[in-house]
Amino acid sequence: MSMEKVKTGIDGLDVMLNGGIPKGHAFTVMGAFGTGKTTFSLQYIWEGLQQGESGIFITLEEDKNAMIETGLSYGWDFRKYIEDEQLAVEKLTPADAEATIQKIKSDLPKFIKNFDAERIAIDSISLLNMLAETPREKRDQLFALSKMIKDTGATALLTAEVKDDNPESSRDGLIEYTADGVILLRYNETKTGEVQLSIQVKKMRRINHSREIKPFVITDHGIDVQVDGTVF
Amino acid sequence: MSMEKVKTGIDGLDVMLNGGIPKGHAFTVMGAFGTGKTTFSLQYIWEGLQQGESGIFITLEEDKNAMIETGLSYGWDFRKYIEDEQLAVEKLTPADAEATIQKIKSDLPKFIKNFDAERIAIDSISLLNMLAETPREKRDQLFALSKMIKDTGATALLTAEVKDDNPESSRDGLIEYTADGVILLRYNETKTGEVQLSIQVKKMRRINHSREIKPFVITDHGIDVQVDGTVF
Amino acid sequence: MSMEKVKTGIDGLDVMLNGGIPKGHAFTVMGAFGTGKTTFSLQYIWEGLQQGESGIFITLEEDKNAMIETGLSYGWDFRKYIEDEQLAVEKLTPADAEATIQKIKSDLPKFIKNFDAERIAIDSISLLNMLAETPREKRDQLFALSKMIKDTGATALLTAEVKDDNPESSRDGLIEYTADGVILLRYNETKTGEVQLSIQVKKMRRINHSREIKPFVITDHGIDVQVDGTVF
Amino acid sequence: MSMEKVKTGIDGLDVMLNGGIPKGHAFTVMGAFGTGKTTFSLQYIWEGLQQGESGIFITLEEDKNAMIETGLSYGWDFRKYIEDEQLAVEKLTPADAEATIQKIKSDLPKFIKNFDAERIAIDSISLLNMLAETPREKRDQLFALSKMIKDTGATALLTAEVKDDNPESSRDGLIEYTADGVILLRYNETKTGEVQLSIQVKKMRRINHSREIKPFVITDHGIDVQVDGTVF
Amino acid sequence: MSMEKVKTGIDGLDVMLNGGIPKGHAFTVMGAFGTGKTTFSLQYIWEGLQQGESGIFITLEEDKNAMIETGLSYGWDFRKYIEDEQLAVEKLTPADAEATIQKIKSDLPKFIKNFDAERIAIDSISLLNMLAETPREKRDQLFALSKMIKDTGATALLTAEVKDDNPESSRDGLIEYTADGVILLRYNETKTGEVQLSIQVKKMRRINHSREIKPFVITDHGIDVQVDGTVF
Amino acid sequence: MSMEKVKTGIDGLDVMLNGGIPKGHAFTVMGAFGTGKTTFSLQYIWEGLQQGESGIFITLEEDKNAMIETGLSYGWDFRKYIEDEQLAVEKLTPADAEATIQKIKSDLPKFIKNFDAERIAIDSISLLNMLAETPREKRDQLFALSKMIKDTGATALLTAEVKDDNPESSRDGLIEYTADGVILLRYNETKTGEVQLSIQVKKMRRINHSREIKPFVITDHGIDVQVDGTVF
Repeated sequence: MSMEKVKTGIDGLDVMLNGGIPKGHAFTVMGAFGTGKTTFSLQYIWEGLQQGESGIFITLEEDKNAMIETGLSYGWDFRKYIEDEQLAVEKLTPADAEATIQKIKSDLPKFIKNFDAERIAIDSISLLNMLAETPREKRDQLFALSKMIKDTGATALLTAEVKDDNPESSRDGLIEYTADGVILLRYNETKTGEVQLSIQVKKMRRINHSREIKPFVITDHGIDVQVDGTVF
Repeated sequence: MSMEKVKTGIDGLDVMLNGGIPKGHAFTVMGAFGTGKTTFSLQYIWEGLQQGESGIFITLEEDKNAMIETGLSYGWDFRKYIEDEQLAVEKLTPADAEATIQKIKSDLPKFIKNFDAERIAIDSISLLNMLAETPREKRDQLFALSKMIKDTGATALLTAEVKDDNPESSRDGLIEYTADGVILLRYNETKTGEVQLSIQVKKMRRINHSREIKPFVITDHGIDVQVDGTVF
Repeated sequence: MSMEKVKTGIDGLDVMLNGGIPKGHAFTVMGAFGTGKTTFSLQYIWEGLQQGESGIFITLEEDKNAMIETGLSYGWDFRKYIEDEQLAVEKLTPADAEATIQKIKSDLPKFIKNFDAERIAIDSISLLNMLAETPREKRDQLFALSKMIKDTGATALLTAEVKDDNPESSRDGLIEYTADGVILLRYNETKTGEVQLSIQVKKMRRINHSREIKPFVITDHGIDVQVDGTVF
Repeated sequence: MSMEKVKTGIDGLDVMLNGGIPKGHAFTVMGAFGTGKTTFSLQYIWEGLQQGESGIFITLEEDKNAMIETGLSYGWDFRKYIEDEQLAVEKLTPADAEATIQKIKSDLPKFIKNFDAERIAIDSISLLNMLAETPREKRDQLFALSKMIKDTGATALLTAEVKDDNPESSRDGLIEYTADGVILLRYNETKTGEVQLSIQVKKMRRINHSREIKPFVITDHGIDVQVDGTVF
Repeated sequence: MSMEKVKTGIDGLDVMLNGGIPKGHAFTVMGAFGTGKTTFSLQYIWEGLQQGESGIFITLEEDKNAMIETGLSYGWDFRKYIEDEQLAVEKLTPADAEATIQKIKSDLPKFIKNFDAERIAIDSISLLNMLAETPREKRDQLFALSKMIKDTGATALLTAEVKDDNPESSRDGLIEYTADGVILLRYNETKTGEVQLSIQVKKMRRINHSREIKPFVITDHGIDVQVDGTVF
Repeated sequence: MSMEKVKTGIDGLDVMLNGGIPKGHAFTVMGAFGTGKTTFSLQYIWEGLQQGESGIFITLEEDKNAMIETGLSYGWDFRKYIEDEQLAVEKLTPADAEATIQKIKSDLPKFIKNFDAERIAIDSISLLNMLAETPREKRDQLFALSKMIKDTGATALLTAEVKDDNPESSRDGLIEYTADGVILLRYNETKTGEVQLSIQVKKMRRINHSREIKPFVITDHGIDVQVDGTVF
């Protein structure tokens, strides 16, 4: 049985994934601060736009203008796609927890459903989940959000922050189990003070993928995975 | 005294188990995300179907269609067995915690009893247990579920997620003690960025089994344990 | 002053203990899942039966039939001893916490007192203690149980599970201090994927004992400690 | 697209940052006690004053006089800038938690807005956040403060203390994710008892920066980053 | 100024202590289960009796008969000293927490005051402190007990259990700070499975003492510290 | 600008500090039990007395007589200074938490203000802080105490106990951030069982100080830092 794949826009990663993310998957990109999760999200959405696909970018970290500026710094001009309504950017405001939770419970599902996006990126699911008060609320919110996104049929990327003391586990320790795939971004430090970023596909349901850890760099054109390189 | 064994469908593992799982055991397959627990469960159920045995697959992670597609990606077509009612697939919905808990308390026991399955797989017991609110509820639910499953006489596989900081302990730290057996799946990383999966029978009541750690791969035909190789 | 000793049924261990367990001691056998605690308990009771001593086996993990079958797998046929009322098997049901706690508070003490056993084994004290709700209840229950058992004058073995992150400490961190002795069972993994079990007498009041760590195997005839070998 | 940069006053660091901090960023300087966070803040504000920029220094650790004396010990005489109202120093008093929280909710935002500073330094955000009682209050206060500062358009430095057991994570584990940049100061000890301080740009949105770890010293003229040296 | 010293009865340790424990000190002997804390306490009391000093032994772990038997196993016959009222043995019963706490609040202080002992041993202070419910009760009880003992002028030994994950810290993490001295007993394991016990004077107020770690053995005559040996 | 310094009385340390502690600083001496914190405090006060400065010694660990005896064991006779009212010794009684807290809120501030001491030592701030019940009370008490001490203008030494699992962090994890300086005392153990004490100036505001780790010994004349040696 042949399976439809969605390209991430990061060539080396698509090789590791045997062609891309299975269409309809909700996958997570996990990593500590500074490992390039926001860049990954933007690159993923940009790739879709180039393929003619529509996208929704939901951001809690930067506002719309900052997101556009960040894109421009990589040579990706999101403005025309926003004008053409091929791309929607939704800013959630963590400083107003109640309003944000209300929004993701009512307006956002309707909006996402109506927009009929092929790609969705949420940056970040951890910050969103931090707004829920109790473990139960966090859990229920995550399950509800996952279900809502899966029901749209879009291929969705959710960035997640990792635990301080365990860079292979998400803050809530839940998304990696419920997600269809987990791509892990890591910081590696050598004893001489050099630092290398690395990427690994820890999990991707329904496809055979590489499990190797590969180095990557963030250039003026975004993330570039060196599929032939090794990590220290 | 000779003991009846149930083949897991993973040849190398059956060698490690001296023939298979003792009939009637409830055993757990523990591992981090991406170690192949879902694949193991499907392979276990598929093996039973090939032997003419009936099975129930209880899933919290993927829905019925996704489960069928995942099977197909390994060449296992579960559809005809579902039609023939040799296989029942039960989807529990973690997004609706209350309904799910109600279901596993009343409908599911009746259903399992009536279906009279020879094999049961629950994927995953950790996600199910996460729906219970308090430690006491978790404990009582796990004991009740274990007892219910044992009373059916089926040979049952329960997948369990591991602790973030201890890949040899289940999330609740309980199932490994109450289960009749524990099969551990692990991620091993080399310094050059390569990754190897390994399997170990940590515990299996009433039989003499290997305790060695053996490498395995996930191929297009499922899990393949290399019983002659060594890890690290 | 000469001291009466009770043989464990594991020859190598009896050598390490300078003859056996001091009569009347309540000692604990601690270890992770899969290290052979249940086998140890059965072997201990079986040894007593062969010496003409009476015994009580209190089990929370397996039911009576499973316990008998496990014994048979080692060549120990407990059935005739049960019939002759030289051995009593008491099954406690963790799925019914309240009834179990009630039982260990009232019926069990009377029963143990009347049966007048020379050996008692409880498998496991950790699972029993898990039924108590609060730390205070756990502590009080453990103290009361210890006292009740000591008052019988029987030599008692209590199996205990260890902490996930510390294989030398019991779950409650208490039994090792209140017990008269602690025998520790451990899993050791080599870098080539081999696994070896080891045993150590960490504490045994009133006798001079070896403190060395010795390897052991579980054979078709139970636990066999290799007193001349070394570990690692 | 060219981006406006703000010099930190630490030449070596400005090289690592490819010119400086992007204008308008709110970035954090994280490190254990004794790594030079206060010195960094003063140097940052001093640099601005030399460039003719206005600044606000909000201090919880030292009072105004102590801050002035500390500056003098590095040869930075803040007094005339305070007189000229090019620099405002605001002392918050953690001994009076309620008054301080009230102040940062009402007076401080107005003051900051009116002063129209180009640079702001808060030393430290961790001490400030310690005054909030519950995790929710801490989170809400941090989000509100971040938003208030971002809205001013000033380029802001927030010093943050690190976890005792993880010198790469802030006390609250939050600021590193919400901040636009993270500069990490670390203590490195050699086996011969020597100690070296090191600096690393862990994250800086929208620019390509070095991720190397570089040694630095604190001299009579402030922090001096040795960009050609290596650590360890 | 010359200082009066109290011999511990362990010759090698007295050398490490430069003659013994300063008279009137309340010191703690800390160690994991099985490191010989009870043996140490008995040896300390026995030494006093041989010097013609009176003593009180307060035990929570073993009852009076067991304590006497343990003494006999080392060749120390405490019976005649009990008869002659040179030694008092007080058994506290942790199974009855309330009665025990009441006792140490009222009867015990009076008894200790009247008996006018020169040496006191409490085995163990950790078990005693476990009976207090809240951290505050634990703290207050420990401070009150310390004060009561100090006021008697006796030289007092308090055994303390250590943390599971830190064999150099007491359970409550408090007694090592309030005590006038800390003697630490440790388990050391070699890679070949051998085990060695070691002793160290971590703290002893008002005297110059060795801080070296020395091996010891438990023989038929009690603890024997090898002051010329080294630990690994 | 020249800065007035206060000698610690430990010559080697004064070299590391480039002359001494800046006048008016409140600094902490942190270390585990047995590292010489009390000796340091006494030596610091003694040095002041020799310089003709007045001092207050606030003790929670030992009573006045014990403090005097400890001083005598180092050859420091505090008695005449107490008689001459150049030294005040204040004993706080942790066994009476409420009275002690009341005292440090009302009587002590007045007393300290009136006595007009040039040096203050509190041994220990951790024990004092342990008397506060809630984290908030602990925090508020510490901030209030710090402020009160700073307002006197005295140069103050506060001893602090460290975390069990982190000998570089204080119990409350707060004093090292609020203090003007941190001097760390450490235990170093070699593999042959030898133990060495070491000292490090982790932080000292407003001066350039050595950050090296230097060994020290406790002799009959107090702490002696060997500034030319190296540790490990």
